[in-house]
Amino acid sequence: DTSLTVGGHTLASRLIVGTGRYDTMDQMRDSLDASGADCVTVAVRRERLYDRSGKNILDFLDLDRYTLLPNTAGCYTAADAIRAAKLGREILKTLGNPGSDWVKLEVLGDSRTLLPDPAQTVDACEELTKEGFKVLCYTSDCPVTAQRLKAVGAASVMPAGSPIGSGQGLLNQNNLKIILEYLKEDDPTYPVIIDAGVGTASDVSEAFELGADGVLLNTAIAHARDPIRMARAMKYAAMAGRDAYLSGRIPRRLYGTASSPSEGVISTRPYGSSGEVSS
Amino acid sequence: DTSLTVGGHTLASRLIVGTGRYDTMDQMRDSLDASGADCVTVAVRRERLYDRSGKNILDFLDLDRYTLLPNTAGCYTAADAIRAAKLGREILKTLGNPGSDWVKLEVLGDSRTLLPDPAQTVDACEELTKEGFKVLCYTSDCPVTAQRLKAVGAASVMPAGSPIGSGQGLLNQNNLKIILEYLKEDDPTYPVIIDAGVGTASDVSEAFELGADGVLLNTAIAHARDPIRMARAMKYAAMAGRDAYLSGRIPRRLYGTASSPSEGVISTRPYGSSGEVSS
Amino acid sequence: DTSLTVGGHTLASRLIVGTGRYDTMDQMRDSLDASGADCVTVAVRRERLYDRSGKNILDFLDLDRYTLLPNTAGCYTAADAIRAAKLGREILKTLGNPGSDWVKLEVLGDSRTLLPDPAQTVDACEELTKEGFKVLCYTSDCPVTAQRLKAVGAASVMPAGSPIGSGQGLLNQNNLKIILEYLKEDDPTYPVIIDAGVGTASDVSEAFELGADGVLLNTAIAHARDPIRMARAMKYAAMAGRDAYLSGRIPRRLYGTASSPSEGVISTRPYGSSGEVSS
Amino acid sequence: DTSLTVGGHTLASRLIVGTGRYDTMDQMRDSLDASGADCVTVAVRRERLYDRSGKNILDFLDLDRYTLLPNTAGCYTAADAIRAAKLGREILKTLGNPGSDWVKLEVLGDSRTLLPDPAQTVDACEELTKEGFKVLCYTSDCPVTAQRLKAVGAASVMPAGSPIGSGQGLLNQNNLKIILEYLKEDDPTYPVIIDAGVGTASDVSEAFELGADGVLLNTAIAHARDPIRMARAMKYAAMAGRDAYLSGRIPRRLYGTASSPSEGVISTRPYGSSGEVSS
Repeated sequence: DTSLTVGGHTLASRLIVGTGRYDTMDQMRDSLDASGADCVTVAVRRERLYDRSGKNILDFLDLDRYTLLPNTAGCYTAADAIRAAKLGREILKTLGNPGSDWVKLEVLGDSRTLLPDPAQTVDACEELTKEGFKVLCYTSDCPVTAQRLKAVGAASVMPAGSPIGSGQGLLNQNNLKIILEYLKEDDPTYPVIIDAGVGTASDVSEAFELGADGVLLNTAIAHARDPIRMARAMKYAAMAGRDAYLSGRIPRRLYGTASSPSEGVISTRPYGSSGEVSS
Repeated sequence: DTSLTVGGHTLASRLIVGTGRYDTMDQMRDSLDASGADCVTVAVRRERLYDRSGKNILDFLDLDRYTLLPNTAGCYTAADAIRAAKLGREILKTLGNPGSDWVKLEVLGDSRTLLPDPAQTVDACEELTKEGFKVLCYTSDCPVTAQRLKAVGAASVMPAGSPIGSGQGLLNQNNLKIILEYLKEDDPTYPVIIDAGVGTASDVSEAFELGADGVLLNTAIAHARDPIRMARAMKYAAMAGRDAYLSGRIPRRLYGTASSPSEGVISTRPYGSSGEVSS
Repeated sequence: DTSLTVGGHTLASRLIVGTGRYDTMDQMRDSLDASGADCVTVAVRRERLYDRSGKNILDFLDLDRYTLLPNTAGCYTAADAIRAAKLGREILKTLGNPGSDWVKLEVLGDSRTLLPDPAQTVDACEELTKEGFKVLCYTSDCPVTAQRLKAVGAASVMPAGSPIGSGQGLLNQNNLKIILEYLKEDDPTYPVIIDAGVGTASDVSEAFELGADGVLLNTAIAHARDPIRMARAMKYAAMAGRDAYLSGRIPRRLYGTASSPSEGVISTRPYGSSGEVSS
Repeated sequence: DTSLTVGGHTLASRLIVGTGRYDTMDQMRDSLDASGADCVTVAVRRERLYDRSGKNILDFLDLDRYTLLPNTAGCYTAADAIRAAKLGREILKTLGNPGSDWVKLEVLGDSRTLLPDPAQTVDACEELTKEGFKVLCYTSDCPVTAQRLKAVGAASVMPAGSPIGSGQGLLNQNNLKIILEYLKEDDPTYPVIIDAGVGTASDVSEAFELGADGVLLNTAIAHARDPIRMARAMKYAAMAGRDAYLSGRIPRRLYGTASSPSEGVISTRPYGSSGEVSS
């Protein structure tokens, strides 16, 4: 077990990383390399493709190595996001990159928290799906919205652990567990990817330990004091968390010789049984 | 950065693993291998050196590969623990293993929680240090006892994250931070190793992210459904956590664009001021 | 400070309690009495107004004592909820109860979690407001949806602490803080009421300590082993939490004599600085 | 249920409050009044009985109203604490106060955290008990030390929730649960009082919800912005928490209609059964 299949693409690494917020393009390139990711996401709004000195981010990405995942960061309406998605498709087709058929959909509802707009996200997802896109949807941790997105055709639902750039990790594991239970109950391979909020390595491991299929992050690497080392930390954390999930952890008990676990069973664990524990 | 120096021994891996509680000796051997550890701890009370079928655990450990760390598990008084430590030294000298000069001291105070007896642990540490041992001391997360142990000569203080085998992780990070602050403030390389309580990979990463120098664990691997895979998870988790610690994580904020870290002021508090804290 | 003004009604108690899920009407009546509430919420769908033995819940409520808050529990579309709201208005007018001009809007998105449907809730709130209702809106803890609801005229936004009946308390205090910050920043008296998820008394106090103006709960009382005593506990918890909020709590520190609050700098971090956060 | 019996004294309120750290004696007197406590604890080291202007704290306490609980704050050895306890007994005898036969024992191990010294506390407790004192022992949350204290005759064990004055609340509920389980398993009325660490009202409620018999606090009131109001908050919080504990809370579930609770049984709950939940 290491590959993640989502939207028809099979990725060797379960970590998807962003390309924004780096001090320099060189730092970005080296951090991506250290992260072990084979898929990177790129904002396709024109002003985000170029850095302050006019360099195009695409010139710093080895397109033979990375599958690009175009994203609609900075869009606040469904219409805007749909336009950005189509622009991304054109750019990637021109580049000959395999990522031209998918998109990470972000329709933001608020410029301070960068949290998504639930209604506009559902609308844009439905429309883009009809137009043939494989849509990976950034959303809040709301189980109702997550179900809607899957119902209108999302290739993956990507709930936020906490607000983008907040570094707060997975604030509401209860909601994330409900999302995993709901989206996977009759469809265990449906990919759920935690997107946004990661602060450090243990947050990534926790996401996988809950049963997530992948993690997408950006700021936690780009704004660390040492981005390249943090990228490496995230690579190991993804491997650690996924392996731990598949290994079936010991239950939590009040003390080691206690007669019963201190928490109950949660069905999203692969080896769930009466001795197993949830979070 | 990868090696950990403690008690005069330099270890390539910052993860130390136990040898107990495995179903079979073969499973133990393969799990140790997968963990990447180069130091393993072995209980030296006679009844623990042999398994149910009479096999000696030492026959399944590659003594050219592993530095053994004898431990006094199962001892409930200082006198008992001192006897066990000396027996361990004799055994390891006979084996020609470099671990003959150190010991992991456990003096238990309670057979259900397996939590340590603070007074007896301090007494035994002092005596063993006088007799030339490098003493690594299992203790609770009490900062007062941790300071005592260092004062009487402990080569490393090893606070419990939670009770042995409980799988609860690091329950009192506040105490662990105080211990790290106290033991390292004039002595930054003094080794503090989290021992006991780990349940899964993210617990290991969290220990390193707090600033611990190493982690010792056993049950979380031995009693996982797939011990060998969990051992590998723990190896990656140690690498992830240590790298993340050294990388300088992003601060936690209420949201990514908030002007100050989240754990500072919250404007809805009636008396919010710079000394106030939110939750 | 004790009264809460919301939707033109001034309530002596900041606790609003539900009337469902009790074993008997007598138990309900005595629990409401013990809770100290002067506002109780009643589901207006016909099948919920009568219990198993055909008794009408309204016959057990002292209408001279309680302001009724009709709610649209059990509605899954905006249209359904609007119909229920209008039915509630008619019933309360007939009864001569002052609660005929307001409604607690619930538009559910999922029958298992009873979490709200964000888009339908916004639509129904807008429509009901246009028709002259004072609308108190049950919603998730999503800050984007909370802002929308206020923008379309909600008299109060009522975010869930956790799913109805889950007893999990306030799972995402970060989102609740953002909602309080957003809805109150230019409008400090705008009422925010935590609705759903309370399990026990300390959950109620925490809601007020965060800055909430009120708490609405039902199952935590109705399904406790001793509902009447639990109702009394909730009365005290609301008073305790509100007083604690207004009193300005002490900051959290690593230890009492630490020079700065604990959630600021930790010296063992390698890159600790004033913007850094500890755990 | 409201009274607490400990060391032969029956107290109407389960909240015991300290008398230190107030700005003025008048503020102290009014805060004690608002707290509803009928037992207050007073440090008997001479330098603590007088404030900066030379006023004696005892002149501001209505000795017909309050049972005094002398404490040995500021003592760092068993011998010191024993001397202070005896001095307290003499002072209270002279005053004719019923508190002359008991003492709150503090033997500190560290002047920064004010955490207790486990070994010296056990020694002093044993000696004072032999000399006829009813000894209420401040201790850490270590279950081993708690059992020792009861074994040598402590009238009550008083574990710290977190360091004195830290405002961190109950950091290690797992250890507190173990202490409650151990000290009460064959002796359900043995009084366990949480002492130290309270920051705000919900912390007090949580202590009672865990099963504690009482709470002792000082800084959370004395250093709040409005101590008198905070004292009132604490009175209500104690009533709320105790009532909630006795009421048998609803279990925690992933969502309200989930088929099983999300956590398991903990034996210290009064109505523990398979549907009940721990913390």
